[in-house]
Amino acid sequence: MSQVSVRTQPSLEELREVRAAIADTVKTTPVFSLSELSRRCGGTIAIKAESLQRTGSFKLRGALAKLRDLDARSCRGVVAGSAGNHGQALAYAARARGIPCTVFMPLEAPVSKVAAVEAFGATVRRPAATVDECVEAAERLAEEEGLTFVHPFDDIEVIKGQAGVGLEIDEQVPDVAQVVVPVGGGGLVSGVALALKQSRPGVRVVGVQAEGCAPFPESLRERRPVAIGTPSTIADGIAVKRPGELTLGLVSEWVDEVVTVDDDAIAEAMVLLVERAKLVSEGAGAASVAALASGAVAPAADGTTVAVLSGGNVDARVLAAVINRHQTSIGRRTRVFTRVPDRPHGLADLLQAVADAGGNVIDVMHVRDGVALNVDETGVELVIETRSPGHRLELLERVREAGYALTEMS
Amino acid sequence: MSQVSVRTQPSLEELREVRAAIADTVKTTPVFSLSELSRRCGGTIAIKAESLQRTGSFKLRGALAKLRDLDARSCRGVVAGSAGNHGQALAYAARARGIPCTVFMPLEAPVSKVAAVEAFGATVRRPAATVDECVEAAERLAEEEGLTFVHPFDDIEVIKGQAGVGLEIDEQVPDVAQVVVPVGGGGLVSGVALALKQSRPGVRVVGVQAEGCAPFPESLRERRPVAIGTPSTIADGIAVKRPGELTLGLVSEWVDEVVTVDDDAIAEAMVLLVERAKLVSEGAGAASVAALASGAVAPAADGTTVAVLSGGNVDARVLAAVINRHQTSIGRRTRVFTRVPDRPHGLADLLQAVADAGGNVIDVMHVRDGVALNVDETGVELVIETRSPGHRLELLERVREAGYALTEMS
Repeated sequence: MSQVSVRTQPSLEELREVRAAIADTVKTTPVFSLSELSRRCGGTIAIKAESLQRTGSFKLRGALAKLRDLDARSCRGVVAGSAGNHGQALAYAARARGIPCTVFMPLEAPVSKVAAVEAFGATVRRPAATVDECVEAAERLAEEEGLTFVHPFDDIEVIKGQAGVGLEIDEQVPDVAQVVVPVGGGGLVSGVALALKQSRPGVRVVGVQAEGCAPFPESLRERRPVAIGTPSTIADGIAVKRPGELTLGLVSEWVDEVVTVDDDAIAEAMVLLVERAKLVSEGAGAASVAALASGAVAPAADGTTVAVLSGGNVDARVLAAVINRHQTSIGRRTRVFTRVPDRPHGLADLLQAVADAGGNVIDVMHVRDGVALNVDETGVELVIETRSPGHRLELLERVREAGYALTEMS
Repeated sequence: MSQVSVRTQPSLEELREVRAAIADTVKTTPVFSLSELSRRCGGTIAIKAESLQRTGSFKLRGALAKLRDLDARSCRGVVAGSAGNHGQALAYAARARGIPCTVFMPLEAPVSKVAAVEAFGATVRRPAATVDECVEAAERLAEEEGLTFVHPFDDIEVIKGQAGVGLEIDEQVPDVAQVVVPVGGGGLVSGVALALKQSRPGVRVVGVQAEGCAPFPESLRERRPVAIGTPSTIADGIAVKRPGELTLGLVSEWVDEVVTVDDDAIAEAMVLLVERAKLVSEGAGAASVAALASGAVAPAADGTTVAVLSGGNVDARVLAAVINRHQTSIGRRTRVFTRVPDRPHGLADLLQAVADAGGNVIDVMHVRDGVALNVDETGVELVIETRSPGHRLELLERVREAGYALTEMS
């Protein structure tokens, strides 16, 4: 592997040249301090918000860098297989450079993502159910029609583009000591590490994978790309089953450590970013923040730790579901069962008792089957929202004091 | 009124002086283009993201400006009544300047907001249920203990601080032609108009109120502050029942127009900002975008229209509720009633038919009472999520073809 990486290692000067060449279309994304998390973790933590990049993710940088390289060789068109950010980024980049673009997207891709790619002027084809099949279809089309297949990460030109994130951090965060980067195929973390390790050798670069799809740790140990089985994570943007040949070499050489975080930590990080940073993140994008918030990565003792929020392309309904699930997991929502007299006011009195205790009733169901009930009573299930775990306990006690035997269903 | 406003009008030079004096603590917030909305509305639209200001709203600017003025007079402490942004901003500003701060917050204020104010080092008191009562309590304490009561908007020093938003837009958007600003008490729009109308007389400044709390239009017509009754809007941050004396004069003189938007438009704007701009907004903050998206304000024909996203302090659960409600209102979610045979596989077969049509079942209830049923069947209510309104109609048709009589409950 060291042969591969040595052969292909771009210098800092090359990375800067690529960055300058695509600066007309790439935004320099802002860096925000995150004092809440800094206080909690005991360091200085900042967010590099690539979610605010055009197309909603860092992928635009790599796509533009690739097209710049192709341009010189009179490219007839580009093609990719993607369910998400890579497809949007390539479509946007191709339109910006006047190159025809085709994106193969899986059948189950959300309408919103298909519409986004089409809005950028690309042709969308939907030949199959999985991303893997779409990638194969894209490669076939490229061969048949003499088009250029653009790989989402295992391409040195793409990686040179992603390095722009590292070059910007270098300028924007004078005391940067550590950078934490979500890792799927490894293109972003490779680019960031190439830029920062060459400009500031003392900076630590840490990659983060989702526990439900984390082939890097084993691949690094075995010194070859090892594929995992079926991915299962809310961080679909980094659910890549197998590291690239090129990226594995670069990560092995330049990245200090690759850690994993579970979906609970990722969901919590997404909610934290909404509440504290006012930023929308996709699961993959929040993995870096999750690593810090969950303690998988410790903030640097001196200097700033930068978490790269790599993308914000999450369906609004998925974000809503993540928030609601989080309300439950932190003890603010509870589902209880109780019995009320089966007469007028029976339910109303119960709801009054809950309201008096400051609870917000989200759902009410009558339950008459499968539970032991006297003939003059009916079962009721309530979903109640409270202000905090402490308030939840207080509420349960007060409603019990009002005469209701409550069973918490958890 | 013109007497009031003439007497108190700060010059551009004064506004710049205030901005410079508080620049150590205020962030220059970014401006983002919003191409989706620009395409839809036929103009060039950008977002000034004050949601990314420290404390999550523009209010910090006014609070710091006020403390700067007080500082010179050896202030013993500041006090305010607030359920939200003003309280957080004053607490943050007071801590930054080393001044003691007390905030009176209503009993129903969310724990998260109380915790935020306390985290900034202020003393929180919760004497009453409503904000109005808290404001009165704050004024009383100020009088009793010789502290300074800080009004959230009707104070020329506060307004000078808010003007910084206008000064930044002037620099950040060279072709600015129109600015759209959420209006509660009118402090922000007064400051923005004072700055922009003096630096660029041709720029149009439009204020936006929530339909459920919009005293400005009538107050402007009557040339005196007219109070409305009980506010009812999701934009609680601009639910101010009565314009200030000072702000009404300034708005009357400097602001071109004040329009209103309804809660549906505000909710849609919040979702649009999540999906397209990756930004979290509170209802009040999104009112400006709502005015453009709903057509209440037309984008400028030449030059850029800037919508000020004034704040992002929304409870995550409220954001989730807004998103889910929006899914329904755009026709992606539907609740249907049908009957299935009351035997093993009865429900499973129905769910299979829905899954085959690409629907995602969010909720299932058996319904046995209050509907006509044969003895061998049971009623079922489903909540189904679809990919689009078109997909919803297609799904209903396919499930009907599979033999289920569906009633859509809307």
